[in-house]
Amino acid sequence: MATLGLACVRLCAGLMGRRASPWLRPLRCLSGMTVSQIDEEVAKLLELKARLGGDDGKQMFVLKTPKGTRDYNPKQMAIREKVFNIIISCFKRHGAETIDTPVFELKETLMGKYGEDSKLIYDLKDQGGELLSLRYDLTVPFARYLAMNKITNIKRYHIAKVYRRDNPAMTRGRYREFYQCDFDIAGQYDPMIPDAECLKIVYEILSELDLGDFRIKVNDRRILDGMFAVCGVPDEKFRTVCSTVDKLDKMAWEDVKTEMMNEKGLSEDVADQIGKYVSMQGGLDLAERLLQDPKLSQNKQACAGLTDMKQLFGYLQLFQVTDKVVFDLSLARGLDYYTGVIYEAVLCQTLQPPTPAAAEQDGAVPGDEAGVSVGSVAGGGRYDGLVGMFDPKGRKVPCVGVSIGIERIFSIMEQKAEMSAEKIRTTETQVLVASAQKNLLEERLKLSAELWNAGIKAEVLYKKNPKLLTQLQHCEETGIPLVAILGEQELKDGVVKLRNVANREEVDVSRADLVEEIKKRTSES
Amino acid sequence: MATLGLACVRLCAGLMGRRASPWLRPLRCLSGMTVSQIDEEVAKLLELKARLGGDDGKQMFVLKTPKGTRDYNPKQMAIREKVFNIIISCFKRHGAETIDTPVFELKETLMGKYGEDSKLIYDLKDQGGELLSLRYDLTVPFARYLAMNKITNIKRYHIAKVYRRDNPAMTRGRYREFYQCDFDIAGQYDPMIPDAECLKIVYEILSELDLGDFRIKVNDRRILDGMFAVCGVPDEKFRTVCSTVDKLDKMAWEDVKTEMMNEKGLSEDVADQIGKYVSMQGGLDLAERLLQDPKLSQNKQACAGLTDMKQLFGYLQLFQVTDKVVFDLSLARGLDYYTGVIYEAVLCQTLQPPTPAAAEQDGAVPGDEAGVSVGSVAGGGRYDGLVGMFDPKGRKVPCVGVSIGIERIFSIMEQKAEMSAEKIRTTETQVLVASAQKNLLEERLKLSAELWNAGIKAEVLYKKNPKLLTQLQHCEETGIPLVAILGEQELKDGVVKLRNVANREEVDVSRADLVEEIKKRTSES
Repeated sequence: MATLGLACVRLCAGLMGRRASPWLRPLRCLSGMTVSQIDEEVAKLLELKARLGGDDGKQMFVLKTPKGTRDYNPKQMAIREKVFNIIISCFKRHGAETIDTPVFELKETLMGKYGEDSKLIYDLKDQGGELLSLRYDLTVPFARYLAMNKITNIKRYHIAKVYRRDNPAMTRGRYREFYQCDFDIAGQYDPMIPDAECLKIVYEILSELDLGDFRIKVNDRRILDGMFAVCGVPDEKFRTVCSTVDKLDKMAWEDVKTEMMNEKGLSEDVADQIGKYVSMQGGLDLAERLLQDPKLSQNKQACAGLTDMKQLFGYLQLFQVTDKVVFDLSLARGLDYYTGVIYEAVLCQTLQPPTPAAAEQDGAVPGDEAGVSVGSVAGGGRYDGLVGMFDPKGRKVPCVGVSIGIERIFSIMEQKAEMSAEKIRTTETQVLVASAQKNLLEERLKLSAELWNAGIKAEVLYKKNPKLLTQLQHCEETGIPLVAILGEQELKDGVVKLRNVANREEVDVSRADLVEEIKKRTSES
Repeated sequence: MATLGLACVRLCAGLMGRRASPWLRPLRCLSGMTVSQIDEEVAKLLELKARLGGDDGKQMFVLKTPKGTRDYNPKQMAIREKVFNIIISCFKRHGAETIDTPVFELKETLMGKYGEDSKLIYDLKDQGGELLSLRYDLTVPFARYLAMNKITNIKRYHIAKVYRRDNPAMTRGRYREFYQCDFDIAGQYDPMIPDAECLKIVYEILSELDLGDFRIKVNDRRILDGMFAVCGVPDEKFRTVCSTVDKLDKMAWEDVKTEMMNEKGLSEDVADQIGKYVSMQGGLDLAERLLQDPKLSQNKQACAGLTDMKQLFGYLQLFQVTDKVVFDLSLARGLDYYTGVIYEAVLCQTLQPPTPAAAEQDGAVPGDEAGVSVGSVAGGGRYDGLVGMFDPKGRKVPCVGVSIGIERIFSIMEQKAEMSAEKIRTTETQVLVASAQKNLLEERLKLSAELWNAGIKAEVLYKKNPKLLTQLQHCEETGIPLVAILGEQELKDGVVKLRNVANREEVDVSRADLVEEIKKRTSES
């Protein structure tokens, strides 16, 4: 108990900040805590105790990554590289530049941009100097970048990690540290042309990634607001009712309706009117029909949104992507900053159920998620007001963009890779420099340097006298297609024995021709 | 003043942590502060006051990135991409896999690994849950990864940002957020073979980056320790004297000697003996000579280091890199975890002096740094004990690696780019889809989609009726080489007018041949 007592004093000092000593009062520092806070502190103390050696004084390490984060092993990196290549190629095909911003921003830069989700922002400890927070998305840093550099038009992509202290569900690809791949178009342009290109990009990427069928749901903040207005929702309840509507992809209408009435205080009549609208799905036809809707057509906001929606579908037809795009009045994305069109892409297939062990790690009830839907893999919309929030004079820069949520896509690709018979190579080595006899290390190193200098991807085992079998096994295991074998005789003859690992064929190649021969053989395969 | 008073109360609450209210005493909370702490708090209060509207109540924003960090604009990203490609190609040429780890680690993972530099670690705020810190380098996360996954041999590279709360000097490429490009070889191998490959890699990368002449200094922790021992430095002073020796690249010997005597408490005789050794530079010959040194040869540690050094230079000769590698007894890298060979690459050229404005931003005295040396651009060494620190049973995994410090290289490349006449393209767009007449937006969008679907990098202006001149100017500005021009006549004839932006030549190309023609033309250039 002495250890625990000491730990408590230290912990209280920690809780009270950097210069705590003058007012340190261990006995009082637990006042005002909730039960769950106490549980949390007890858990921390016990972990500390364990680390200090526990009851038997043996040192213990906690060998793990932080909650909600993961390492990527070489195989996962190979998959990640493949996915990124497809996405980046698409962004470049559409003429985008790229930028990068710091992983943290001034805390105030992020404040007031995310509504209720602000509680999920990671703050850095105040160690003197500025107050900092890890970025929550790439959109707000982008807007800050535009305002700071007075840029009024740009088409850029940005691929980087973002951070959210959310409840992780890693088997479904939901992490606290995750990649976003953002493409945004800033500038004052004719309506819906850049918006349509964003949807075309989502279409191209999801098609190329070959993840099965998908749908891109589209709606408009102004249509939602207009709909709430004509249904009789008071202005101040728009956002909160919106977040209830947003649950329609996971909850049945009846439950959503109950929440609207019981938690959001709407009358049954108002809820039913909303229910009628949010069940509507369609395309150009639906936009046209709603423009004739006796109630909705009376609302200016809704009409503006519907007119743009019509225009958007016109462009999408030219882009030949309307087979996957649905105008869906139930789509209501959470973020505060959207001002016009919003969209979200969902995969139609479901993920394989995770292994019970993996599910348990996530804190899920085993058997609970058989064939879980991975949910949205991309989303975005128009945010014409965000840059203006950073401009001292409030000058607006209209923006529209899309964010590809890559972790869920990784999860699917990893599952596919695991189930497939094909072996993923994690290196690109073309040839192993080997020897069948002893005392040839120096010759192996010399030949390796020759090959490296000629741009050949080559490896050599770091042993003085490795067995030939060991060297060949290394090739089999890592997929190296060729072996350059040196021996006394070969050195005398000025040749190298080049072996094809797959069919075991060996030919002598003159040292002068070796580089060309390796290039020829590896470009063929 | 009312505002300032309120801010003070809030600030104190902030300093005291999350549950501060029961013991909040504004009048006492400034006790125990140093003058610089008070200055810092005053600055924070004044910033807060400014944000709250200052004296005239006008809202103000602080539009900046956090201290010591930067955005990368598209041009800088183009340079970054070029540098990364060279580095990654080299790592892959040497058969490396890649991994990734989270940007933050459990705080305890980083504790006890960096000696005095630990104070530079960024901690995350305790928001409940685990205590986290931003990674300080990629080596400790790598060691954690090996121990956690029980990996005993791997050759991997890792390119990612690391974080240090250091004093930034951005004009010289010293940031608080910066990239490291690490290559490491873990495993039990014959001595100095992987170590030699690491140096070969540094040599290849610095040669390919074409940054002018460079030197790679090499030394060994065991030679340093042996040298201190035979010179009469007490064991417990090895590390601190080591950090004084490390200053020899920035300070004259006389000043280093003074520090050894006055601050580290060495006698003049001991200092002079050290001085004799640390002035020595050479290669294989120096290692051989020191193995005969009457004092050093009596020290077991030093002999082991010198024997390995001899071996290393033998391999470096086979790799043909000894023209740039120097065995330098004054090299003493700071990090605690090195156990054997250490090395550091420095560029021989100097950076252009920064503009006075940029220097001032860094807090430097203008005129102070004419032709500043960029210092070390790569460093590394052997750390055989680090993985064992994470293993519950202390099992060791020998490791050697190198880290390329890319920000200083970026600084040089950016300067070179600025001074060069060559324009850097920030997009890869091959063709702009344009029209000379009105009302052809739909045709432009249709053709763009055709080109995108065929893998052509194409742009189209987001205006209904852009002027042809505007479209051509966009190509000039962004370096797009081709324009596909649509007009009523071309549409009737089933052709597109393909214009070469550089020489203004135009030819009609049939719509069916357009993709092939664009591919042909852009692969030529």
